[in-house]
Amino acid sequence: MKKRSAIEASGHKFRTKNISKRVQKIVISPIKEMSILADIEAEKGGANIISFGQGIPYFDTPEYIKSAVRKSLDDLDTAKYTLEPGITELRTLLAGHLEKSKGIKKIKPKKEIMVSAGCQEAVDCALATIIDPGDHILLLEPAFASHIEQILQWGGKPIFVPLEEKLGWKLDIEKCEEKITKKTKAILFSNPSNPTGTVFSKKEVIALTKFAEKHNIIIISDETYDFLTYENICHFSPASVPGARSRTILCGSFSKKYAMTGYRIGFAFADEGIIDHMLKVHDALVICAPAISQKAAIGALKGNQESVSDFVSKLSENRDLMCSHLDELSDYFEYQKPKGAYYIMVKYKKLKMDSFKVSLKILKEAKVITIPGDAFGPSGKGYLRFSFACSPKEIEEGFRRLKNWTKNL
Amino acid sequence: MKKRSAIEASGHKFRTKNISKRVQKIVISPIKEMSILADIEAEKGGANIISFGQGIPYFDTPEYIKSAVRKSLDDLDTAKYTLEPGITELRTLLAGHLEKSKGIKKIKPKKEIMVSAGCQEAVDCALATIIDPGDHILLLEPAFASHIEQILQWGGKPIFVPLEEKLGWKLDIEKCEEKITKKTKAILFSNPSNPTGTVFSKKEVIALTKFAEKHNIIIISDETYDFLTYENICHFSPASVPGARSRTILCGSFSKKYAMTGYRIGFAFADEGIIDHMLKVHDALVICAPAISQKAAIGALKGNQESVSDFVSKLSENRDLMCSHLDELSDYFEYQKPKGAYYIMVKYKKLKMDSFKVSLKILKEAKVITIPGDAFGPSGKGYLRFSFACSPKEIEEGFRRLKNWTKNL
Repeated sequence: MKKRSAIEASGHKFRTKNISKRVQKIVISPIKEMSILADIEAEKGGANIISFGQGIPYFDTPEYIKSAVRKSLDDLDTAKYTLEPGITELRTLLAGHLEKSKGIKKIKPKKEIMVSAGCQEAVDCALATIIDPGDHILLLEPAFASHIEQILQWGGKPIFVPLEEKLGWKLDIEKCEEKITKKTKAILFSNPSNPTGTVFSKKEVIALTKFAEKHNIIIISDETYDFLTYENICHFSPASVPGARSRTILCGSFSKKYAMTGYRIGFAFADEGIIDHMLKVHDALVICAPAISQKAAIGALKGNQESVSDFVSKLSENRDLMCSHLDELSDYFEYQKPKGAYYIMVKYKKLKMDSFKVSLKILKEAKVITIPGDAFGPSGKGYLRFSFACSPKEIEEGFRRLKNWTKNL
Repeated sequence: MKKRSAIEASGHKFRTKNISKRVQKIVISPIKEMSILADIEAEKGGANIISFGQGIPYFDTPEYIKSAVRKSLDDLDTAKYTLEPGITELRTLLAGHLEKSKGIKKIKPKKEIMVSAGCQEAVDCALATIIDPGDHILLLEPAFASHIEQILQWGGKPIFVPLEEKLGWKLDIEKCEEKITKKTKAILFSNPSNPTGTVFSKKEVIALTKFAEKHNIIIISDETYDFLTYENICHFSPASVPGARSRTILCGSFSKKYAMTGYRIGFAFADEGIIDHMLKVHDALVICAPAISQKAAIGALKGNQESVSDFVSKLSENRDLMCSHLDELSDYFEYQKPKGAYYIMVKYKKLKMDSFKVSLKILKEAKVITIPGDAFGPSGKGYLRFSFACSPKEIEEGFRRLKNWTKNL
């Protein structure tokens, strides 16, 4: 595999002595590498850096959730490990939430739900549970950078199914058929998609479930951004399809919906026979999700959900703001307007360099973080991912810098 | 490998369809399995269960740390991902702490320290970083149950080096030499030892570092209980030996020292060339340690450390209390008094059953959680692990129950 690390592209040499071949092959997701490099850059130059990089909502955690955290400090059990699969009350609330929001019926919270240290850990447990070395995992691509690393980390092989950029990064199910082999174990995708902002329609999701059934593979559905769609488009989960439920591992998150990325709290919902095994991996990785974050999550689900619609409307405004700025720079950038999540895959023109170099150049020269498109798979070549989860002020300032920067290109 | 799961021993059947061979081979550590089974038992019987199982201090997190958590809720960055390797201030404080407490010189906090979601995740990242399928990892044994699962999970082979029970679970370095092969990549041990309570002396640790140097292997030192020794015995880290520092991965924890098991916060200190790679695994597993727990850890390190000596003196009293109860039951149990940590490996007499059965029997009949010795490796056969981290009242009540129970044996 060619160079995939922004840190390596910036000149850093990695040690090989005593390092496993498996880990030599993977990278810190360039999403976080760019934050690490920006931290070094900021220290050197004393400059403040604007981040269109890692997707972190600019809002604070809603007050009613913080209040639940404060109260939880009076409970002795917040100091302590929870049950390994998570606090029973939280699993029960999650079951109710999934039933209500996704129409999934009769969930057994104690057997089918696992609370995790973020959606990232839930997906990692899912992959560990199904991958044996050499197994193939299909990825709708451009794909979330960490999904690629997670597959490699467990000895699997990511098989890229390219989305159709010209059609707004849409799925062509025939392309999935072309990539199936005897080694294919699962298909993994985020919906709404990070990084493309695609919202796969009910029809597309049903087609995917039929495809999975036909080939007897698992569906891993990363639904981190399920609440975040624009233009009244609805999110649809494969776990809502009765026939597909038992082969679906639904991974969810509190991070973006409740501005809780720092709490590292998420969950997985799957058939009992799968959760049984995911819990083994979960134990080996982190023992249990942080108790204090589980208490925050209980607070989040119990409160009224007004803050969520407020977040969506603010992010919708950010989307328009970033798109209008990109339109002004149409000599340099082009893009498909996202229907969900808070990312835009931006194609750069004029510069004949790989996306790592472009991203590092923008960081050094314009002091703006973007993520190299190559981090998301081969279709990301020639692109940068921009996040519009930062504040409108930061979007304005970032584009002021980018406009100045383009003048000198 | 023979049956290793308490849940399986209790009658549960695990699914095999679509589950990776690797994960089929591992178990939830029986330490947590027993809590899960106790939860089911409590629900069925309505009885309260006394836990000598999972090692959870009975104290609450000290007030000065909770106050730091409360304050952190006013900071917007608590809602957000931290830098992937951890908050810089925390890494700097940890460097200072390691220099002061272990005499390690000139630590580079930004390059040699990684903040993790508990010591468990630090050890897991370390193992992932050095194990290729089939590699051997030496374990001083009885060993922490999760270390066995973590090695298996990454495709490694745990090679057990038995400790000498009659000598208080002491190490015979010759036994390490007997187990070395070309496939040996590292030696992993906890010191003070979970589950035996051994504190390996400076002389023993230096012998281990020489052994590691001779065979060019990595040392993974789990120092979760470094603060918790009795009878004025001192803990000594292999990272304190200048020649061994670069081959040592020191994994540490806030869980027990500050009664913060629920916060899932720990760290690793290692050579920059190793940390570089551990960070890749860390990213794929959890992205970053919980921000709120990192803030709690900053609070913990900044405060005065009186609470720590208070905890040690309380746990020392618990040790004496549990040992005196065990002495009263000397017809049924025998043990070596631990010098550190808060566990006792208790040999059971009279019952001719494997430790899983004995542990389940005690749970069902006496409503007391103990951990089957077999979970800790072959030398654990015929033993149960008792934790004395619970309150003195719970120790009293647990032994009242055990005394009644032995009457009916």
